[in-house]
Amino acid sequence: MAQLPTVEDVARVAQVSRQTVSNVLNSPAIVKDATRERVEAAIAQLRYRPHASARRLRTRKSSTIGIRLEPERNGISGSVLDTFLHALTEQADSRQMRVLLFTANDPLHEIDQIRRLRDGADVDAFVLTSTSYEDPRVAWLTQNEVPFVTFGRPWGHDDMSDPRHRWVDVDGRAGVREATENLLAQGITRVGYVGWPSGSGAGDDRHKGWVDAISAARLSTTGLSTSVVDGVSQGTEAARELLAGNTVDALVCASDSLALGARIAAASLGKDAMPIIGFDDTPVALAIGISSIQQPLAAVATAVLELLLGPTGNEVLPARAASEEPSYRLLAPRLVERRSSNLALDRTIGT
Amino acid sequence: MAQLPTVEDVARVAQVSRQTVSNVLNSPAIVKDATRERVEAAIAQLRYRPHASARRLRTRKSSTIGIRLEPERNGISGSVLDTFLHALTEQADSRQMRVLLFTANDPLHEIDQIRRLRDGADVDAFVLTSTSYEDPRVAWLTQNEVPFVTFGRPWGHDDMSDPRHRWVDVDGRAGVREATENLLAQGITRVGYVGWPSGSGAGDDRHKGWVDAISAARLSTTGLSTSVVDGVSQGTEAARELLAGNTVDALVCASDSLALGARIAAASLGKDAMPIIGFDDTPVALAIGISSIQQPLAAVATAVLELLLGPTGNEVLPARAASEEPSYRLLAPRLVERRSSNLALDRTIGT
Repeated sequence: MAQLPTVEDVARVAQVSRQTVSNVLNSPAIVKDATRERVEAAIAQLRYRPHASARRLRTRKSSTIGIRLEPERNGISGSVLDTFLHALTEQADSRQMRVLLFTANDPLHEIDQIRRLRDGADVDAFVLTSTSYEDPRVAWLTQNEVPFVTFGRPWGHDDMSDPRHRWVDVDGRAGVREATENLLAQGITRVGYVGWPSGSGAGDDRHKGWVDAISAARLSTTGLSTSVVDGVSQGTEAARELLAGNTVDALVCASDSLALGARIAAASLGKDAMPIIGFDDTPVALAIGISSIQQPLAAVATAVLELLLGPTGNEVLPARAASEEPSYRLLAPRLVERRSSNLALDRTIGT
Repeated sequence: MAQLPTVEDVARVAQVSRQTVSNVLNSPAIVKDATRERVEAAIAQLRYRPHASARRLRTRKSSTIGIRLEPERNGISGSVLDTFLHALTEQADSRQMRVLLFTANDPLHEIDQIRRLRDGADVDAFVLTSTSYEDPRVAWLTQNEVPFVTFGRPWGHDDMSDPRHRWVDVDGRAGVREATENLLAQGITRVGYVGWPSGSGAGDDRHKGWVDAISAARLSTTGLSTSVVDGVSQGTEAARELLAGNTVDALVCASDSLALGARIAAASLGKDAMPIIGFDDTPVALAIGISSIQQPLAAVATAVLELLLGPTGNEVLPARAASEEPSYRLLAPRLVERRSSNLALDRTIGT
């Protein structure tokens, strides 16, 4: 073929207008099936290639969402963000959006990367994960009017309902409360809690859920909870101390790492059947048979895209103004119950 | 600012040539630090923005590598590809390459997606994972001269050394052989194997490693191995059958899922201390304390980028011709030894 085929060539072969070809390429949903198929056949026959770079230069849209791939800090709960990334990529694809990954060593480096991608018109919007108190990335994006949504609420005092900060989060407090109430409803009155040191938004929130449930049942929280840095051996240590006093009959934990640690501590004290509930429903919880509070990650991805693109659109909405309505979604987690752990099971069979 | 700043403006402010500005933007490593800093200061001062779409249109390079995000099939071993993706994205970043994700339901859909990204000049090269016998994606990419590298060797008869197919893989056979020899060296002569049904490239390869080691030790393989579909309960079932005959004293498994299952089976028979070795060194193996064969995923990412970009370059090399030298890397895994599992540990303490 001497010359590359053009939109006009496709229109002529398919016997439609140039606009219809453009619609098939850009908004196929608005074209009648039969027409669309004819245009697609013509595109295939002529081997027509719309040049995305040219289109992006014209429209100044990249149809691309940028997301930082977090460093793998924690082998166990790291799977949550990977699962979210899977859901986001799959759903973005069905919205004709692509996902571009980048890495960064810290929030300031992340801002540099974001600036570079924004300046190059490589990315229309950003999704941020692992938000913190007074997150500098959020300040930068807001100030520069770059569209973004965070998975994780703004953990601050004044900005929870700042309309310029669209966010999606999972109600960890409600999840822990439900898990604790589930144990109380089984007649277990001494339900302990192993959490993280105070100061992290998610950790403080989950701890409150346990306090909510215990207080609502008019029970005392005294001596029933402890906090440690996340980790399996830390969970074992913390649970062993709580169990040594013989004051708890079940444990809710802020993570599956802690829950696995608690499970090991319980088994070492002959308490194989003691109910233990973790958080995040990771592959480890499934493999070991620990109940766990599951974040609805597919629904989080759906909500993130709805806040970025609207309910059905394929283009990123502009950054929001301070005068608009707040725009966020707080989703409920669910408790995945596993009646007996594999560890308990093997002992039952073995002895 | 009435008009957007240009490269010329930056060059004037920084008192360097236009070419030097271009070098700072495209090959900063070749510019002296002091000069680079002056140019960067000028870029910041003028808020100059190189327009990536324009640059890509001019050069027909996107500086982007496409990779399909695999659906999450297996919660336990799925972490391997996620870890690889992390390593690839981080290392690509330091080569000024970005990683674009896409999803696909099957290999033919993946080819559609690849074609779309290639036709739009969105992606310069592709990285394929989970290769299979006579992979249709490889055939399409080769035929269309699209640069690609597979993580996973071509599992076929004739095409293992086809220079048009650049690949990186981990020598699972050597890894299983080493793990088996490690057990034999401890004086354990009855080392069993739990693998996958024959027909999968990786599965058959790993099984051969076990046969290699047993045969080299002039021992018999008869009755010491079994094969099942991957999974924890399948591993428990398979190991229980092997252990029932009391013919094995240690087990090597084709995956951590099977190894966890085997660990549970062993514990249920009071064989807490029985050595069990898994494959992939997943978070589950770490959490439970199972020895495992670890794939060198950072080195795989390095090798993939070297085959795509050359040892130091920042641009994708052209697709290779059939007349060139074969280009592949087979990397050695390593055995991560864990002396006692958490399950054994808790029992030791508890009883």
